[in-house]
Amino acid sequence: MTDPRLTPLAASLPDTVPFVGPETQQRRMGREFTARLGANESVFGPSPRAIEAMQAAARDVWMYGDPEAHELRHAVAAHHGIAPEHIRVGEGIDGLLGLLVRLTVAQGDWVVTSEGGYPTFDYHVTGFGGRIEQVPYESDRVDTKGLIERAGWTGAKLVYIANPDNPMGGLQGARAIHEMIEALPQGALLVLDEAYAEFAPEAERPEIDPTDERVIRLRSFSKAHGLAGARVGYAIGPAPLIAAFDRVRNHFGLGRISQAGAHAALADRDHLAHVVSQVAAARARIAAIAHDNGLAPLPSSTNFVAIDCGGDGAFARRVMTGLGARGVFVRMPGVAPLDRCIRVTAGREADLDTFAAALPEALEEARAAP
Amino acid sequence: MTDPRLTPLAASLPDTVPFVGPETQQRRMGREFTARLGANESVFGPSPRAIEAMQAAARDVWMYGDPEAHELRHAVAAHHGIAPEHIRVGEGIDGLLGLLVRLTVAQGDWVVTSEGGYPTFDYHVTGFGGRIEQVPYESDRVDTKGLIERAGWTGAKLVYIANPDNPMGGLQGARAIHEMIEALPQGALLVLDEAYAEFAPEAERPEIDPTDERVIRLRSFSKAHGLAGARVGYAIGPAPLIAAFDRVRNHFGLGRISQAGAHAALADRDHLAHVVSQVAAARARIAAIAHDNGLAPLPSSTNFVAIDCGGDGAFARRVMTGLGARGVFVRMPGVAPLDRCIRVTAGREADLDTFAAALPEALEEARAAP
Repeated sequence: MTDPRLTPLAASLPDTVPFVGPETQQRRMGREFTARLGANESVFGPSPRAIEAMQAAARDVWMYGDPEAHELRHAVAAHHGIAPEHIRVGEGIDGLLGLLVRLTVAQGDWVVTSEGGYPTFDYHVTGFGGRIEQVPYESDRVDTKGLIERAGWTGAKLVYIANPDNPMGGLQGARAIHEMIEALPQGALLVLDEAYAEFAPEAERPEIDPTDERVIRLRSFSKAHGLAGARVGYAIGPAPLIAAFDRVRNHFGLGRISQAGAHAALADRDHLAHVVSQVAAARARIAAIAHDNGLAPLPSSTNFVAIDCGGDGAFARRVMTGLGARGVFVRMPGVAPLDRCIRVTAGREADLDTFAAALPEALEEARAAP
Repeated sequence: MTDPRLTPLAASLPDTVPFVGPETQQRRMGREFTARLGANESVFGPSPRAIEAMQAAARDVWMYGDPEAHELRHAVAAHHGIAPEHIRVGEGIDGLLGLLVRLTVAQGDWVVTSEGGYPTFDYHVTGFGGRIEQVPYESDRVDTKGLIERAGWTGAKLVYIANPDNPMGGLQGARAIHEMIEALPQGALLVLDEAYAEFAPEAERPEIDPTDERVIRLRSFSKAHGLAGARVGYAIGPAPLIAAFDRVRNHFGLGRISQAGAHAALADRDHLAHVVSQVAAARARIAAIAHDNGLAPLPSSTNFVAIDCGGDGAFARRVMTGLGARGVFVRMPGVAPLDRCIRVTAGREADLDTFAAALPEALEEARAAP
């Protein structure tokens, strides 16, 4: 039953969000996960200084956060060495993507993305009546040339790429990204989702002039900075586009505690370096656990590892379910052939011990299934 | 200069949000306000238990908040004695209003609201291409019959009323609201913004069956609960409409700390009662200060008092500016004849001492202006 007052567009949409949270799964199972390795959160936590800043801000929470997020915006700008008019701070990359789609995609407009790419981007595009051209991955990597080609065919407004990639974990080097930008059709905007940028080698991060009108980059405090539950991200882009977010954003949307936490997290470079090194060690261990079980880990420049379970999507789903039943929360890509993999977030020693113990059993169970 | 890739609708909008925050004013002045009495925040603060809950949640902030906000949603439902499918928790009333407008207002659709009413509602409607029919206040009160009449003329999708009212502070009794609902034209939805409900006498709060398809009610944790900086509100309404928010919402939008704070705040009824009584005392003192200066305070069922400064909008603006120069942040309504008033939030003793000292000087200065 749908409300008759919905717009024709809203009436055409399903009542579903892109992800089922681990809390929902826990409620269904009737118990908690022991190892939470499914949402690419940073189990290593945020900077202790960010926690302190948020705890202090909690005492002042009767005040709205600064609707301009002036201090955080300026700190981010200084961090990147660019002017603040190129920075827009917002409620996570998810929130910023929603606003960007709203600003640029009218009903019937095309966007291009990867088949099996970030579902929340697709959710926003569908939600604003846009049409989605999906380009299959090529050998488990985003097909950057394919994206550009289809953008030309469709006259796409947006071309979306996550780099480093989610859900497969691969990295396009700086050169590949620059080639995409140069080849981008007139009128298209490259949406470069860099949620996992901090985990990639610095030499491979593209340098992009923030005045370049062809690109908007998105960064997150949810991954390397460990602030997923505070919901903060930012966009870097040409000033007129960045300014346009003021046309549609929820102006008090970024709360006081979140602003304080992100500001403190950004300043703590030592903690970030510590997390990045912990994540690298955890990736190596996940790869080793995969090998120990005769499975193939994919190369990763993120805080997770996709593991090829050696079967089809149904098999990988059985492995994922078996891991869940043993207290290990992981996720898997949504489409073939990517869905032969499970995706395991970098965890602490204890998390990965749990995973290492559960994986052989889950595999055995999955193989024994009728 | 506007980005050529914006949709025609986005291209038609100005780069401006509805409010200039006090932080922006402070940056312009080069100093801080002594008394922050302009944004109807709760200077009395949230429950200490809410602060503790947020501080504890800050330690777990590496995890996304539950995208279903299950515990908070169920707690709110239990508080109202209704089923959870009638409750939608979200990023403040502002965020929920934006989603509601998106769900119901297609380009060219009409909504009805009061002239000088909540600017953020108008911002959302304009932002989705809706058309706004504004009904003037009648003797400083919302013209409920006028709203219904214009809804009939225009075929409005939404009829917005804040009750208790912002910016004037008045209350429509339960009976007037029930009369509105009964008279509502077919196809219209009454948007009952009850951000200030906790400050109104309980006997005057309308009882509305949550299955009633004609009404959606909006509640806030930003006012009486003192959590403005955490951004949490909720909607109460018919289940199909409440479910439809899943079509368009930012599914991880409500962070972990905010959920924890709101949950704890809701449970602390003693603190709420304490705040409501402090606010009542502060309102009386603001009224007395107004009288002492020969000004007329308007009756208020909120946490602020509108004070008729006895002149026109330009005069009230001079008073507001004079107060600001003396460290007192207040706001004023945006349109005549409401804009003969300034709007002063209930403050602590010290805040109101500052206001009492500043007001005569600001008035004298305003009267002396050429």
